Amino acid sequence: MTIEITAFNWVPDFARGFVRDLRPRWACEELGLPYTTRLISPMPPKPADYLCEQPWGQVPVLHDGGVQLFESGAILLHLAEKDERLLPRDPQRRATAIAWLFAALNSVEPWLFELANVEIFSKDEDWAKLRKSSLVRDTGKRLDGLADALGDREWLGEAFGVADIAMVTVLRGADHADLMSSRPRLADYVARGTARPAFERAIAAQLADFRPEPVAA
Amino acid sequence: MTIEITAFNWVPDFARGFVRDLRPRWACEELGLPYTTRLISPMPPKPADYLCEQPWGQVPVLHDGGVQLFESGAILLHLAEKDERLLPRDPQRRATAIAWLFAALNSVEPWLFELANVEIFSKDEDWAKLRKSSLVRDTGKRLDGLADALGDREWLGEAFGVADIAMVTVLRGADHADLMSSRPRLADYVARGTARPAFERAIAAQLADFRPEPVAA
Repeated sequence: MTIEITAFNWVPDFARGFVRDLRPRWACEELGLPYTTRLISPMPPKPADYLCEQPWGQVPVLHDGGVQLFESGAILLHLAEKDERLLPRDPQRRATAIAWLFAALNSVEPWLFELANVEIFSKDEDWAKLRKSSLVRDTGKRLDGLADALGDREWLGEAFGVADIAMVTVLRGADHADLMSSRPRLADYVARGTARPAFERAIAAQLADFRPEPVAA
Repeated sequence: MTIEITAFNWVPDFARGFVRDLRPRWACEELGLPYTTRLISPMPPKPADYLCEQPWGQVPVLHDGGVQLFESGAILLHLAEKDERLLPRDPQRRATAIAWLFAALNSVEPWLFELANVEIFSKDEDWAKLRKSSLVRDTGKRLDGLADALGDREWLGEAFGVADIAMVTVLRGADHADLMSSRPRLADYVARGTARPAFERAIAAQLADFRPEPVAA
């Protein structure tokens, strides 16, 4: 049974190390699961057969034996189900882990995605300049709620798990603002996550797969 | 074993029928699972003991016997695990259902949430007026990818399931724009979902729980 992760063969410099195939790569590295990569071009138009696998032409897609699926959150959950090191068997701990997995992707990432839009992708637009201060303020409140919930614990659950892979990769996207440095509890949390050898192997593998220039295929 | 869903005891008129406790209510109605509600005030500040259950003071929270969890997506998955009518046992069908559940909440809802922000909550802000046209265009592209993936099927999987509860409740939030009426495939999909007797019972129950005026407790 081979695990195959779809990733991009090139992205601009600012996106390197941040593409979402990092998440399943990290999960595989935590569990010692070997995987292969299928590298595709990020350039439109996407081939119709790839759109059948991922409705918006994004990555990652996972193939695991006879099963294929998209959405990094669903893929993380699929991989975590294999091993209690990423997803505890105890019903309450399992429920808490899955709650935080969804929270990372539905309650935190949308704020940081919009902030990246304002600060990077649309930074020269008038609306983005006008939007920035209130968005930074509201995103900060959201992160305060997260920091309070994390408290003095090392991880979102009682031990490192699948929700931390999601949350750490989400929060790394806030490094460009002052949102993390002004919240040392969260900055330390991200530093703990990214210091894990499995994370270091995952990001090195993503970076090694990028070609220097865009390619069509 | 009693299922308890936390919901708000009051919200402004425009939010009635759209608060996220609708999702677990609908899932319970589909499965014939009885549930009770715990009604709390939406007004800040939230009691510290509620913030221990939901980091941002939002709803829903689910209590199911000895297990409690937050995030409507995690709660939907928890309830769907009880019954293959909402989550198939076949590995590929299960993976597809969970992929679409995450897609509803991570790849579609953030766009519609931001659009609601621009069109409703922040509509008098200069940035929102400047932002609207490009956001409507980009959200439309996202919905086009969804409509293409849905194709001529009735539901996201081979039968109605947990992902449809998430996606239909997400898409209902786009009714205020022309995004749905200009995409009959998606408008018909939402109409099929909201015509289900279980949906009708769920929304009637949410509406019946709102008091006419805000209350503190």
